[in-house]
Amino acid sequence: MDELGHKDRAEPEDTRIRAVRIQDVARLADVSTATVSRALATPERVSPEARARVLEAIAKTGYVPNPAARTLRSQKTYMVLVVLPDLANTFFSKILRGIEETLFEAGYGMIISDLDGSPEKEAHFAAFTAAGRVDGAILLNGHLFGQSRDGEGQPARITIPLVALCEAIPGADIPQIEIDNRAAASRMTQHLASAGHRRIAYVSGPTNNILERERFLGFKDGLEAAGLAFDPALVIPGDYTIEAGVRAGQDLVARSARPTAVFCTSDEMAIGLMRTLFSAGLRVPEDISVAGFDDIEFAAVAEPALTTIHQPRRELGQAAASALINLLQGRSSPKRIRLETELVIRDSVTSL
Amino acid sequence: MDELGHKDRAEPEDTRIRAVRIQDVARLADVSTATVSRALATPERVSPEARARVLEAIAKTGYVPNPAARTLRSQKTYMVLVVLPDLANTFFSKILRGIEETLFEAGYGMIISDLDGSPEKEAHFAAFTAAGRVDGAILLNGHLFGQSRDGEGQPARITIPLVALCEAIPGADIPQIEIDNRAAASRMTQHLASAGHRRIAYVSGPTNNILERERFLGFKDGLEAAGLAFDPALVIPGDYTIEAGVRAGQDLVARSARPTAVFCTSDEMAIGLMRTLFSAGLRVPEDISVAGFDDIEFAAVAEPALTTIHQPRRELGQAAASALINLLQGRSSPKRIRLETELVIRDSVTSL
Repeated sequence: MDELGHKDRAEPEDTRIRAVRIQDVARLADVSTATVSRALATPERVSPEARARVLEAIAKTGYVPNPAARTLRSQKTYMVLVVLPDLANTFFSKILRGIEETLFEAGYGMIISDLDGSPEKEAHFAAFTAAGRVDGAILLNGHLFGQSRDGEGQPARITIPLVALCEAIPGADIPQIEIDNRAAASRMTQHLASAGHRRIAYVSGPTNNILERERFLGFKDGLEAAGLAFDPALVIPGDYTIEAGVRAGQDLVARSARPTAVFCTSDEMAIGLMRTLFSAGLRVPEDISVAGFDDIEFAAVAEPALTTIHQPRRELGQAAASALINLLQGRSSPKRIRLETELVIRDSVTSL
Repeated sequence: MDELGHKDRAEPEDTRIRAVRIQDVARLADVSTATVSRALATPERVSPEARARVLEAIAKTGYVPNPAARTLRSQKTYMVLVVLPDLANTFFSKILRGIEETLFEAGYGMIISDLDGSPEKEAHFAAFTAAGRVDGAILLNGHLFGQSRDGEGQPARITIPLVALCEAIPGADIPQIEIDNRAAASRMTQHLASAGHRRIAYVSGPTNNILERERFLGFKDGLEAAGLAFDPALVIPGDYTIEAGVRAGQDLVARSARPTAVFCTSDEMAIGLMRTLFSAGLRVPEDISVAGFDDIEFAAVAEPALTTIHQPRRELGQAAASALINLLQGRSSPKRIRLETELVIRDSVTSL
């Protein structure tokens, strides 16, 4: 719960066994019961602050409003919430298009929230979702509402269908649509090894991200399969952004014993890294081979064109939307859907 | 109205002078009045097709539902619709972030629609907006609902506040947030001319887009200011995408008398074009100078780093959201807000 920033507030231990009443919500939100009613029926007559507190308290307690309000809630909204960790990241653009077009065909609209690491925003959208303002949600941020990415905390009680996309959520009993990150990273590592590279650096994602954990395991798998020893000195921390690639490049440039190949776990990092190498007078791939991950549009037109792992981004978005629509329309959905990736060999990796 | 694809349906000539009744909506939608009522009160009990037809008919007629439904409509939704021409375009990612963060601070959520040239989608979201499912809308697609980009057709009767962003909508009496595209293009053209370039090619955007029309005027302004003649043979058609840049590069490579500089009106086109030049053995900027427009994240890390026009994308999104919030909260907003651009000189342009 610490991500919600309110762990210290009183939450009755027994809310999980008796019916939650409007009084519980009012107490937790520190408002009158009339304000709770107004926040649900005529939100424009309540201050934004009070509204946020009420919605947050509803999410925490799992309160179900009175019959009249429940009738309102039972009406479908034909809206789906899409939760992103970073809307400014190019990686998501085609995924969003895949989600949007599939939802639209089925008659649903898309509400986007960019959580951007903000606990306030997270609490707001948890409440928004719990209050039935959308029919379902697609989570691309690697955790359930109320939990951290490490699975800490009690998930908010959300009764509408949820689907996880890209970042799997371990233990969550919802459909999860992803690629096999571990196998893909192993494959790229073995590709570099088969080109004769023995010293292969690895530029990581954020270490609390499951994509990073899986790709890192895949990197080690690939080294092992190729008979190469893992050297922790060749792991450079990153976070999937261009700027992290620039920093990783500076790290490499400053080294005396450089690796002959670098596996960047995102194309944005690979493109930023190559730029830094060029600025230092190093050539790609002649001096250092560079590989990416994702196959964003800019990978094919980078100079040199980037060898990378192709993720079917539009199809990932479509598959997640389809799984959610199945649930919304009373059908079932497989719990785990893995789409195929592809090793795309271009010009940024050379044989030794 | 032809964008809605229903010009041939009967629309009474006098709907603009007498009160529109539910019967008018039912007739236009080819359903019973009971279905119109149900589509508004309990949409889940109506087929998606009938729902879409009813919403479309409401948008066309400007029908205001009965008092009970009107009460429902008068409730704020705390949602804003953002209409994009192409969600997959990297250019929009930071703009969306600027919009989203500003809306969120004011207590509003963001619904995104990617119209993608689809008349069905356009009609749906026009109806959605007319029916009061959102409190306001930000239009990035260069036209009002029901009109073409050329201003043809009767705009849908939308009574909620609207704001135009990036692509101005000539004649629309709504706040418009943009950059001075003409002045920025003139500035870049003069920069190329001042570096000694006399034969400057121009890679355009879509010709029905106001951004293109303004930038093209600016290009000609810049030539004139530099005392250079305009040569139509040096105008290469494009559409702002990487692929268009690749095609423009192929066009240039095939020419015997090549220009010494190319002004691409988007960075994506400049990056695609440079790639094609490299593949043909040409060097940038030694053989051809290349300039872009937008300053997306990839411009600074392109090889060579791209000389371009910086657009304050996040601030554009924030300004549009602020203008809309002013209207939503009963305050006024200036009708035209122009944010400053910046000429960013990097490595892709050389002096002759």
